[in-house]
Amino acid sequence: MTAPSREQVLVEALPYIRRFRGSTVVVKYGGNAMSDDLTSFAEDVVLLHAVGIKVVVVHGGGPQIGALLQRLGMESHFVDGLRVTDADTLDVVRMVLVGKVNRDIVAALNVHGPVAVGVSGEDANLLQASPTDPKLGYVGDVSEVHTGVLDRLLAQDLVPVVATIGVDEDGQSYNINADTAAGAIAEALHATKLVYLTDIEGIRRDVADPSSLISTIAADELQSLIADGTVSAGMIPKVASCVAAVKGGVHKAHILDGRVDHALLLELFTDSGVGTMVTP
Amino acid sequence: MTAPSREQVLVEALPYIRRFRGSTVVVKYGGNAMSDDLTSFAEDVVLLHAVGIKVVVVHGGGPQIGALLQRLGMESHFVDGLRVTDADTLDVVRMVLVGKVNRDIVAALNVHGPVAVGVSGEDANLLQASPTDPKLGYVGDVSEVHTGVLDRLLAQDLVPVVATIGVDEDGQSYNINADTAAGAIAEALHATKLVYLTDIEGIRRDVADPSSLISTIAADELQSLIADGTVSAGMIPKVASCVAAVKGGVHKAHILDGRVDHALLLELFTDSGVGTMVTP
Amino acid sequence: MTAPSREQVLVEALPYIRRFRGSTVVVKYGGNAMSDDLTSFAEDVVLLHAVGIKVVVVHGGGPQIGALLQRLGMESHFVDGLRVTDADTLDVVRMVLVGKVNRDIVAALNVHGPVAVGVSGEDANLLQASPTDPKLGYVGDVSEVHTGVLDRLLAQDLVPVVATIGVDEDGQSYNINADTAAGAIAEALHATKLVYLTDIEGIRRDVADPSSLISTIAADELQSLIADGTVSAGMIPKVASCVAAVKGGVHKAHILDGRVDHALLLELFTDSGVGTMVTP
Amino acid sequence: MTAPSREQVLVEALPYIRRFRGSTVVVKYGGNAMSDDLTSFAEDVVLLHAVGIKVVVVHGGGPQIGALLQRLGMESHFVDGLRVTDADTLDVVRMVLVGKVNRDIVAALNVHGPVAVGVSGEDANLLQASPTDPKLGYVGDVSEVHTGVLDRLLAQDLVPVVATIGVDEDGQSYNINADTAAGAIAEALHATKLVYLTDIEGIRRDVADPSSLISTIAADELQSLIADGTVSAGMIPKVASCVAAVKGGVHKAHILDGRVDHALLLELFTDSGVGTMVTP
Amino acid sequence: MTAPSREQVLVEALPYIRRFRGSTVVVKYGGNAMSDDLTSFAEDVVLLHAVGIKVVVVHGGGPQIGALLQRLGMESHFVDGLRVTDADTLDVVRMVLVGKVNRDIVAALNVHGPVAVGVSGEDANLLQASPTDPKLGYVGDVSEVHTGVLDRLLAQDLVPVVATIGVDEDGQSYNINADTAAGAIAEALHATKLVYLTDIEGIRRDVADPSSLISTIAADELQSLIADGTVSAGMIPKVASCVAAVKGGVHKAHILDGRVDHALLLELFTDSGVGTMVTP
Amino acid sequence: MTAPSREQVLVEALPYIRRFRGSTVVVKYGGNAMSDDLTSFAEDVVLLHAVGIKVVVVHGGGPQIGALLQRLGMESHFVDGLRVTDADTLDVVRMVLVGKVNRDIVAALNVHGPVAVGVSGEDANLLQASPTDPKLGYVGDVSEVHTGVLDRLLAQDLVPVVATIGVDEDGQSYNINADTAAGAIAEALHATKLVYLTDIEGIRRDVADPSSLISTIAADELQSLIADGTVSAGMIPKVASCVAAVKGGVHKAHILDGRVDHALLLELFTDSGVGTMVTP
Repeated sequence: MTAPSREQVLVEALPYIRRFRGSTVVVKYGGNAMSDDLTSFAEDVVLLHAVGIKVVVVHGGGPQIGALLQRLGMESHFVDGLRVTDADTLDVVRMVLVGKVNRDIVAALNVHGPVAVGVSGEDANLLQASPTDPKLGYVGDVSEVHTGVLDRLLAQDLVPVVATIGVDEDGQSYNINADTAAGAIAEALHATKLVYLTDIEGIRRDVADPSSLISTIAADELQSLIADGTVSAGMIPKVASCVAAVKGGVHKAHILDGRVDHALLLELFTDSGVGTMVTP
Repeated sequence: MTAPSREQVLVEALPYIRRFRGSTVVVKYGGNAMSDDLTSFAEDVVLLHAVGIKVVVVHGGGPQIGALLQRLGMESHFVDGLRVTDADTLDVVRMVLVGKVNRDIVAALNVHGPVAVGVSGEDANLLQASPTDPKLGYVGDVSEVHTGVLDRLLAQDLVPVVATIGVDEDGQSYNINADTAAGAIAEALHATKLVYLTDIEGIRRDVADPSSLISTIAADELQSLIADGTVSAGMIPKVASCVAAVKGGVHKAHILDGRVDHALLLELFTDSGVGTMVTP
Repeated sequence: MTAPSREQVLVEALPYIRRFRGSTVVVKYGGNAMSDDLTSFAEDVVLLHAVGIKVVVVHGGGPQIGALLQRLGMESHFVDGLRVTDADTLDVVRMVLVGKVNRDIVAALNVHGPVAVGVSGEDANLLQASPTDPKLGYVGDVSEVHTGVLDRLLAQDLVPVVATIGVDEDGQSYNINADTAAGAIAEALHATKLVYLTDIEGIRRDVADPSSLISTIAADELQSLIADGTVSAGMIPKVASCVAAVKGGVHKAHILDGRVDHALLLELFTDSGVGTMVTP
Repeated sequence: MTAPSREQVLVEALPYIRRFRGSTVVVKYGGNAMSDDLTSFAEDVVLLHAVGIKVVVVHGGGPQIGALLQRLGMESHFVDGLRVTDADTLDVVRMVLVGKVNRDIVAALNVHGPVAVGVSGEDANLLQASPTDPKLGYVGDVSEVHTGVLDRLLAQDLVPVVATIGVDEDGQSYNINADTAAGAIAEALHATKLVYLTDIEGIRRDVADPSSLISTIAADELQSLIADGTVSAGMIPKVASCVAAVKGGVHKAHILDGRVDHALLLELFTDSGVGTMVTP
Repeated sequence: MTAPSREQVLVEALPYIRRFRGSTVVVKYGGNAMSDDLTSFAEDVVLLHAVGIKVVVVHGGGPQIGALLQRLGMESHFVDGLRVTDADTLDVVRMVLVGKVNRDIVAALNVHGPVAVGVSGEDANLLQASPTDPKLGYVGDVSEVHTGVLDRLLAQDLVPVVATIGVDEDGQSYNINADTAAGAIAEALHATKLVYLTDIEGIRRDVADPSSLISTIAADELQSLIADGTVSAGMIPKVASCVAAVKGGVHKAHILDGRVDHALLLELFTDSGVGTMVTP
Repeated sequence: MTAPSREQVLVEALPYIRRFRGSTVVVKYGGNAMSDDLTSFAEDVVLLHAVGIKVVVVHGGGPQIGALLQRLGMESHFVDGLRVTDADTLDVVRMVLVGKVNRDIVAALNVHGPVAVGVSGEDANLLQASPTDPKLGYVGDVSEVHTGVLDRLLAQDLVPVVATIGVDEDGQSYNINADTAAGAIAEALHATKLVYLTDIEGIRRDVADPSSLISTIAADELQSLIADGTVSAGMIPKVASCVAAVKGGVHKAHILDGRVDHALLLELFTDSGVGTMVTP
């Protein structure tokens, strides 16, 4: 079997391009899946944008936050595995997410031209939040998504890059789990696709068995895998968000291996899907 | 040297896609270069359109006109190599261009979805014409291009396919040379590119010597090749239109070999240009 | 009784002009009713347009198709009175309708300025079709009308002239009965009026008795005239379309004598209605 | 010679309708030319509007003002033939123009549907004024025309009816000569036509000789007729405004006999022009 | 207690400005409450407008109408306390309301710049009316409010000033009670506030007892005060309109003392409400 | 002299409100002038916005940057009084400006409702930069201002809050002096006013003499005060930017004492100007 010619590859991408043109895709990036080199990720997002897909990037930044807290000598306390976030910690979280990770992603995308704009979930009440649990301080849940600012940026043919800081009605900010925020945004935008770029290959029926990787699974069945403990703790926010988003109207949710170069392109524009796809 | 992976091909097309996105490309097709199978041509045009290029297709149909005239037993007289066009002949020309060739191209494009709309140069005075020479009957030159109808279709994200029948101020129709019409349309639209798909490889310095194929040439120099007889008679309308269009503001004009599958894609989206490019 | 002065005639037209201004009128023309001289028809349509009526012209071209088939020596086979249409015949039908009759009507209208634009039912899937009967080849029924292209042209203050070639989902074209197509278009556009210009005076209760001409008839009663055989075979598509259109929301349908000069004006702008009017 | 049929009359109006469609016509009405029965005038204006002409009606109301002043026992003083207008008189002028004449004209037009809207020259500074002469009190000249309010009403397909009260920068109102105001408005709107409906037949070379009625005259020549005293005093504002308007870009100015029923229709839509036409 | 500084006053107005910005306030003015000096009223309206409130002013003019009728020696007959309005009287009513009171209010507002536009209830059928009682002649009730003209003026950032002349379907005008018209307009516009500027302090539970002034009252309770005769005859149109408007969706209705300078500002922008507020 | 009543204060603000409504005001805040309590500043900005002024806030954050660098134990080197900014320092600068100071100002404004949106000078190439001096690392000068993002936010009735990070054509970020950036933005926006909130009273002719405070000064004269050394080093960026902005078309520039509560309100809405005003 010989390799396809360049023009064949382009022509074979045509049906995918036509199918997704004008549709909305929310991509969760960052955290452990975010490599030092953003080049491959940026090329994928810019190519999606160039062929007419409305892309929204949502990111967290756990490792980067941890690193700055450590440099500042600020110790974190954890309750049920969640970092207790006091006012000082929140300041650091916000500086890192809004002032560093967000800007780095925006800058990487804008190497290809002025396509990306950084947004904090606080802007225009994008991510309206309420406290998760008094014991956790300024950790919040998304109570509502106001998509106005995203709608406007997408209408201007721009790629919004969202830092997941939320805000309550009194103007108090909260640290929001980025996986959950991405799902809520995808649902609110009636996105066609919600894609998690992670540092795993996908979901396995048996965590220990690479051959048990699930290629396609219905939302209901996936929910039962959470219930019976098959899905590991760290993956629960992503997986639960996939289930919720698909049940809330998102056409397809994907958990892809962000460590593979151009994972987004492979998934969207070729027959060789990578990772796990969740269907209604 | 190994073949590039699919994702590499797509990523390498990115700078081209970004460069041409939103720009206008006029493609002259038809005549001898038009094969029975429009599939490859249609895929190229639809892909250009899908990545945000404003494409206008202009076509003639000499061989198809000749065939119908022959079936009808209508003999043609020629003056200086141009077919004398009386009212009956014009009726046949119009039926073939507007009612057959135009519809065939539109249909081939619309296999990929409703992207193409057929237009006659008579519509909304698109191609305003005046008689070339009384001896030739209803053979006309383009005196003005009214781009209104093209502007509207392009604004609606559609691909206009133009049959080159012109019309004068009294509503009389004329048969217009499609090569010249394509150049005039490109100039009037301030197109970025004007592309002729022909049945030759490109322009040669020495017609007899395939190795003398010109890859890039400035408009002024090309004009001197017409003057000194290097360019053959049949190519003169195309070549002169390239020169005029580039001098009139079109960025680049191309004479490509339409017999090569996906010649348009190769020229626009890869480094391997094909045929001859005319620069200012 | 003296003739009214010019200014009286104009003033008496005022209530009609005000009543129909902004409303949509679909006019079926062509076939046997189409005379060699399109002047009177064109004046009427342009006057309707000038006073703010949205006019859509729909045409067939049976006699002209028959003439070209004969010149080409192509024999037609008939099944149940309908011409079997193979691929070659369809090519001829399309050339005549789109490339000749349509252009002739457009040209006659545009003598008064650039008001008319030719449209094939294939454009933007205007007339979506399915095969009527496998034995008939590419003869189709209208399965759906996509009015997008008409809406846009009407919004731009233009008169669409529709050639009744339909298209199915695979891009295959079909020959569509123009009477039926006109009715379907009127219904889809929620037209105020549907007018058939024919070569008869109107509908008679007794075909043999000129004095039995029906001036006004309700759709239900007209339907019963079809059922009891009063309506002659050749008139059934028109009459059945009138009934269907009025039942589908068109306010009034008319069968007028297109051989009378300015029949449209007389019907719309004076008290002297001509022909038969069908009411809900 | 037999009278033309109704449909012939309508068809003969077509070229006029097409010529004036979308153009702006300013009609000065009122004063002595305004009869008790506004029916014929209203029909003409509504018909012009119905065929797509942008009509602006400008009116004065000298006789009606005189009548109310008399009923109130308010005596008028005249300086150089112009009524001295003190604050009380201005109140009466404004009540009559804005509160009576304007409303009567608007009501007569709106019998045909909601087409007319009353406007005072004070609205949105339409007629910006400065005092003509301190001795005359609140009599003003038009120093500038702000067409904003007219533009908006015309864009909404309405007929503005303008009472000629002006206003200065301090909000003080002035009584403005309606003939002059009509000319200034026509010039500011770049009108195609300015029409004065008067109580004379037109302009005569010899006032005493009905056969010396001028049918067409150039602005320059007309100006010389003012200079040499041929034009009578009462006609000077109209005639001078015609000259100024035509020199300022209005295509044609007309002085018509408003006592003839449907004078406007006869002038605009038939070959039988009435009165005097001023050309550049 | 010292007086607040200027900046404190401005800052304390901020929450009110933000609350009412973009909301619609209908203000009934005129009649007995209208003083000779419109300065304070005009400043208030222009300030409301300047901070982004959509203000509609509605006015009557009973005393001014009475004065002109008297000057003209026209006697009025009364039936059940309502003036019988024949055609001549209606002419006077219209001249005074449209040609004097309306223009005076518009002029007072426009001293601050071109913010106000005069409107008659006849314009574009704003106040559609039907006769109240044949014995009263041209006295009408509002049967429908067509807010089109107000919507357009408000959208253009203008203040409509409405003279309460209504019109029926045949174009006949009617004299409309301004209090009732203001309520109907407020309801039709879904106004936030309806404010009556009157010549009393507000509503008292005991007319004779100044200390019984009602500060806030629910619509239902107020209705019972009409029923039990507590509300005096002259106040009934205002009070009944307040009740109807609040029940019809207006958030709050106010009866303020228009004799207090800047009563509108005090009510809207400070904590010191004046007069009586009606709540749902 | 008694204090003015509340309604008097509001009415006296009216001419200022009307004068500045719709105009653009750029306010430089932050640095030493930024107090811990943003309440008074936020109230002023929100009030300006509420009365229809287009406000743009530009901020730096020197002290806050210094504090975080110190906590992280990062030493700064200075060349000619400017901090050498290496990649790590730039990261800290960006985190503090974009992730802390900007968010704090946005949050303080949004306590009054969703009016403010944070923007980095990197967004959509707002502040295009080039390196000031290779020795200083990533310290940049503004080479161009692309106001697109500000225009859009202002058109949506929002208050942009700009962190002064610039970006060059390769996507590299730079630390930009906020005083200079504010001037450049005011000039690019054709602002009516440019206001510096500082921690001094204004400009003195003699720094040591409080009584020499300059109330109003022409740009040319102010320039000469820089030249002759009257203006102290720390004030030079502000003062030079005032001069440049006023020469570049900004109507007025102000240096106000930001330590005075509501300094902005006092300057814009009362006769008691504070600080120094620079005129053309």
